[in-house]
Amino acid sequence: MENSQSSSFSLPLRGVIPPMVTPLNEDYSLDTESLEKLIHHILEGGVKGLFILGTTGEGPSLPYQLRHEMVQEVCRIVASRVPVLVCITDTIFSEAIGLAHKAHEAGAAAVVTAPPYYFPLNATDLYQYIEQMAAALPLPLFLYNIPSHTKTAFSDETILKAAKLSNVIGYKDSTCDMLGFHRLHPLLDVNFTQLIGPEELLGEFVLMGGHGGVSGGANVFPKLYTSLCQAALQGDIEKVVKLQNKVGEVSATLYSLDGQSGTSVLQGIKLALSVMGICQEHLAPPLRQLGKEKKNMVEKFLNAFNF
Amino acid sequence: MENSQSSSFSLPLRGVIPPMVTPLNEDYSLDTESLEKLIHHILEGGVKGLFILGTTGEGPSLPYQLRHEMVQEVCRIVASRVPVLVCITDTIFSEAIGLAHKAHEAGAAAVVTAPPYYFPLNATDLYQYIEQMAAALPLPLFLYNIPSHTKTAFSDETILKAAKLSNVIGYKDSTCDMLGFHRLHPLLDVNFTQLIGPEELLGEFVLMGGHGGVSGGANVFPKLYTSLCQAALQGDIEKVVKLQNKVGEVSATLYSLDGQSGTSVLQGIKLALSVMGICQEHLAPPLRQLGKEKKNMVEKFLNAFNF
Amino acid sequence: MENSQSSSFSLPLRGVIPPMVTPLNEDYSLDTESLEKLIHHILEGGVKGLFILGTTGEGPSLPYQLRHEMVQEVCRIVASRVPVLVCITDTIFSEAIGLAHKAHEAGAAAVVTAPPYYFPLNATDLYQYIEQMAAALPLPLFLYNIPSHTKTAFSDETILKAAKLSNVIGYKDSTCDMLGFHRLHPLLDVNFTQLIGPEELLGEFVLMGGHGGVSGGANVFPKLYTSLCQAALQGDIEKVVKLQNKVGEVSATLYSLDGQSGTSVLQGIKLALSVMGICQEHLAPPLRQLGKEKKNMVEKFLNAFNF
Amino acid sequence: MENSQSSSFSLPLRGVIPPMVTPLNEDYSLDTESLEKLIHHILEGGVKGLFILGTTGEGPSLPYQLRHEMVQEVCRIVASRVPVLVCITDTIFSEAIGLAHKAHEAGAAAVVTAPPYYFPLNATDLYQYIEQMAAALPLPLFLYNIPSHTKTAFSDETILKAAKLSNVIGYKDSTCDMLGFHRLHPLLDVNFTQLIGPEELLGEFVLMGGHGGVSGGANVFPKLYTSLCQAALQGDIEKVVKLQNKVGEVSATLYSLDGQSGTSVLQGIKLALSVMGICQEHLAPPLRQLGKEKKNMVEKFLNAFNF
Repeated sequence: MENSQSSSFSLPLRGVIPPMVTPLNEDYSLDTESLEKLIHHILEGGVKGLFILGTTGEGPSLPYQLRHEMVQEVCRIVASRVPVLVCITDTIFSEAIGLAHKAHEAGAAAVVTAPPYYFPLNATDLYQYIEQMAAALPLPLFLYNIPSHTKTAFSDETILKAAKLSNVIGYKDSTCDMLGFHRLHPLLDVNFTQLIGPEELLGEFVLMGGHGGVSGGANVFPKLYTSLCQAALQGDIEKVVKLQNKVGEVSATLYSLDGQSGTSVLQGIKLALSVMGICQEHLAPPLRQLGKEKKNMVEKFLNAFNF
Repeated sequence: MENSQSSSFSLPLRGVIPPMVTPLNEDYSLDTESLEKLIHHILEGGVKGLFILGTTGEGPSLPYQLRHEMVQEVCRIVASRVPVLVCITDTIFSEAIGLAHKAHEAGAAAVVTAPPYYFPLNATDLYQYIEQMAAALPLPLFLYNIPSHTKTAFSDETILKAAKLSNVIGYKDSTCDMLGFHRLHPLLDVNFTQLIGPEELLGEFVLMGGHGGVSGGANVFPKLYTSLCQAALQGDIEKVVKLQNKVGEVSATLYSLDGQSGTSVLQGIKLALSVMGICQEHLAPPLRQLGKEKKNMVEKFLNAFNF
Repeated sequence: MENSQSSSFSLPLRGVIPPMVTPLNEDYSLDTESLEKLIHHILEGGVKGLFILGTTGEGPSLPYQLRHEMVQEVCRIVASRVPVLVCITDTIFSEAIGLAHKAHEAGAAAVVTAPPYYFPLNATDLYQYIEQMAAALPLPLFLYNIPSHTKTAFSDETILKAAKLSNVIGYKDSTCDMLGFHRLHPLLDVNFTQLIGPEELLGEFVLMGGHGGVSGGANVFPKLYTSLCQAALQGDIEKVVKLQNKVGEVSATLYSLDGQSGTSVLQGIKLALSVMGICQEHLAPPLRQLGKEKKNMVEKFLNAFNF
Repeated sequence: MENSQSSSFSLPLRGVIPPMVTPLNEDYSLDTESLEKLIHHILEGGVKGLFILGTTGEGPSLPYQLRHEMVQEVCRIVASRVPVLVCITDTIFSEAIGLAHKAHEAGAAAVVTAPPYYFPLNATDLYQYIEQMAAALPLPLFLYNIPSHTKTAFSDETILKAAKLSNVIGYKDSTCDMLGFHRLHPLLDVNFTQLIGPEELLGEFVLMGGHGGVSGGANVFPKLYTSLCQAALQGDIEKVVKLQNKVGEVSATLYSLDGQSGTSVLQGIKLALSVMGICQEHLAPPLRQLGKEKKNMVEKFLNAFNF
């Protein structure tokens, strides 16, 4: 059965599920050789799943053909070792659904959607969109709140209402808004998975009851993030503070190579992976790869960084 | 020669170039019969061009196959009577370029792009994107500033720099920011076309030196908008004020049927066109068509409205 | 009769009513000698009133004693030649009312208030505040919308409701939002005065039916702004465009001496007046006066500028 | 010695320092009788200081005479049992300094300032303002970041630079931005006090290394907040989560009586204190006290709430 994997994870999903980058060749085709190396590198770090084609995966910049290929290849390489979550966020409804079917066929565990990101939507628009989508999906759905990129945000009310749909099983929050977590957490079912995007907040999010993180840095240093998450799940505060500070160092250097631009996180991650020999640094337009000089800074950082 | 049309307009482009809606069937396929009626209706109103697949045209919500079909059909029906401008704004670079080539083959006059609308870009990112795109285009390019939908805005500097690229020939401003117009206008070449999106500002924009408008309401009442633009080009202030107030009535009723939501403009336009028997009211997700009760309000408005 | 002046103007108030700067000595006391020169300079330019202690007048930065002195001195020097409008915007209700009484005693024509600027208020809060204030005032009241400084904005509904209070006679809009003007204008009484703050929009505002402007640049070049407003009132578009471009030059140079900071308008105006020998360039904290180098730039600009 | 108290606290200041409300009579004069009761109630809860005349204390709405009286009375009643921090945030520089001198004479321990809240300031403006103020102060200074009310925010750079001034000893962050805490914390001296405003984040803030909170709810339930802070300082996560959820209940009920308005926190606190017989519910304009119906809701909440 191609989708045997979808029943292979129990809820809530706990731990680190990295938002994997999409390794590209210079002509923006999928670099499958690097993909194998990358997945091997990440899985060795003890992650509990893979989240592909999201923001860090450059999903919205990639042709559908490539996204389908990525889903196929990732599921093949992972071979059910961990659940694969496929981000299907799109402005074209039928393409989002098409990608979900591809994910199902390939053996992915679930799909993820942020609000469609061109038209600003009100709460009624958004809820009806989610309801319509959930009804058409062959897999469970995670909601993804990232108004910095989609403008439209999930309100508390929309999340609570959508969480009652039978195949909506979790929520990834990339708002940096811990207040929102505290408001929602006591109102959601204990099995409804709550994950956090910004890795700078992973420690406290899990300490306070969150289930895990979709941490971009886990592409580069998977063990740092899984150790941090584990320490938080175990209530080892001293270790949480120590490892969270290490994560802060990653943010302050690797994610700030091109000033505080919104895209410098992705630039830093791909550049580090390229220095480490895991994949190439190519980014699909509109993102730009950084120059030689930055590469030297990254090399220096990687040599000095330990945790 | 398939692109004979691209030389058929002189610069700057002056007048009203409506952002045409995309007539859809209930299954979201292109309703070509309605398309013929709609184009006939609009061209009769004296417009100076057609702008297709933009925001009002729901471009970002439509599958590429449908966008290509729309370009083909519009160019066929228009048959070079007015220039056709094709909006290619997208998050997938290669699809934007693909659509531009389709536009060129079909005989469109120019293409239009807003910034790609998922990743927030800084000025360097955006300029390099535009430069890379302009170099790959077979047609002249208009820039399109609509940060309410794309988040990323064109800064003055980016517009001035991009305006020096040989095939960048104009700029559509949907920011509602007249200060920006006044800053830029004296610094741009006299042949660089400046068009305004928000029709509530069309009169003063043209009075103060702008060239014309991409007015959504011209789908419904093309003559109202062309008369307003004409009055402004001729400096007939009394008429401008009178017609601009009429435009204000359209905004206050037809565009506010579902509160002040960001999508109510499109809902109102398609509903009015459906009441007038020109096309159906279907909107592609994530937009929602309005109910029966609103239809009655629109009927009443259309019966009472004259100018 | 000390308040004979309050009946000396007819509604709507038309023309340019400059937001006068407050001339200060180095120790931040009132420089009354400069005040005489400044008022003489401005009145010669044909303005229709004076607006004191507003944003350009640094009202919120000045001790109440100084504000009272300013009201007293301005009314004395103006001697009923034009109406004096006193801005009483404050976070302390009783001090705002106290200043209004001082204005009344001194012979001012009206007072002006923006929303109190510390607590963010909702529409109910704001309307009740205005209602409570209007009931306590000895003079007619203008509303002042400047959310860039107060955060809280007047909504259309609040303005329309407040405009029905018997002593609320006008509205100054500093939002740069021409859409708001077009929405409100047809709904307000013909005698309810509508003035615009941003001078870059003065021409079109008056062409489209607005009554006049509270233009900061009229401190420096009163005739430029009164000529522009006059041309607009007379429908002389060519002249409007020409003079509006001159106003644009002032913005692009004099108001941009310290980058695009929110305070560079005031810095530029006081520096120009100081170069012209009309008053000193001192600004009360938190504003900072600019250095020598900028003074030379201003001198050059003033020598070259003509209209 | 009148200022013997200023040396009575060691740095960093740890624990809960409530932002005390200002008890008012119906005519907005200071209700000193209630003030005694309130201080007694709060000190019994084990707080480590009092923060007066801040946002919760309605400082910016109160006449200076009343602020001076408040400082005098609080210091008298507290009688050096805990340090008193006086918020001097203002738009009039000389009044801010005047209040600081009053605080010094009365025996307060430190003063606190947010950016002046009328003019939007850039980083240079703000730093020079703080430098100028620090040089003129007779007491140590805490910085206070609350851009929701002041618009101007302290940037990381400004805080780090200001923290080097000899009498700048701490920072209160009311931005709800935990990312900012994680960026700044490793860069600040271990004795530089970091306090958090939003009480919904108190637990994690202290767990991750912050020193304490300026929690509005501690006016009503001082022991709840001091217990939460204590649990966090001791690393008792289970207790932190339990008590933090209790704090969440306070937010979800007491602070939401008038919708999500920016002022409903203050309305809820004063109404609860009035139901408890500690002070009257009067709020200075522009804030409005809530009606009877809400009072019943608060009574019910207070009867049912335990922790």
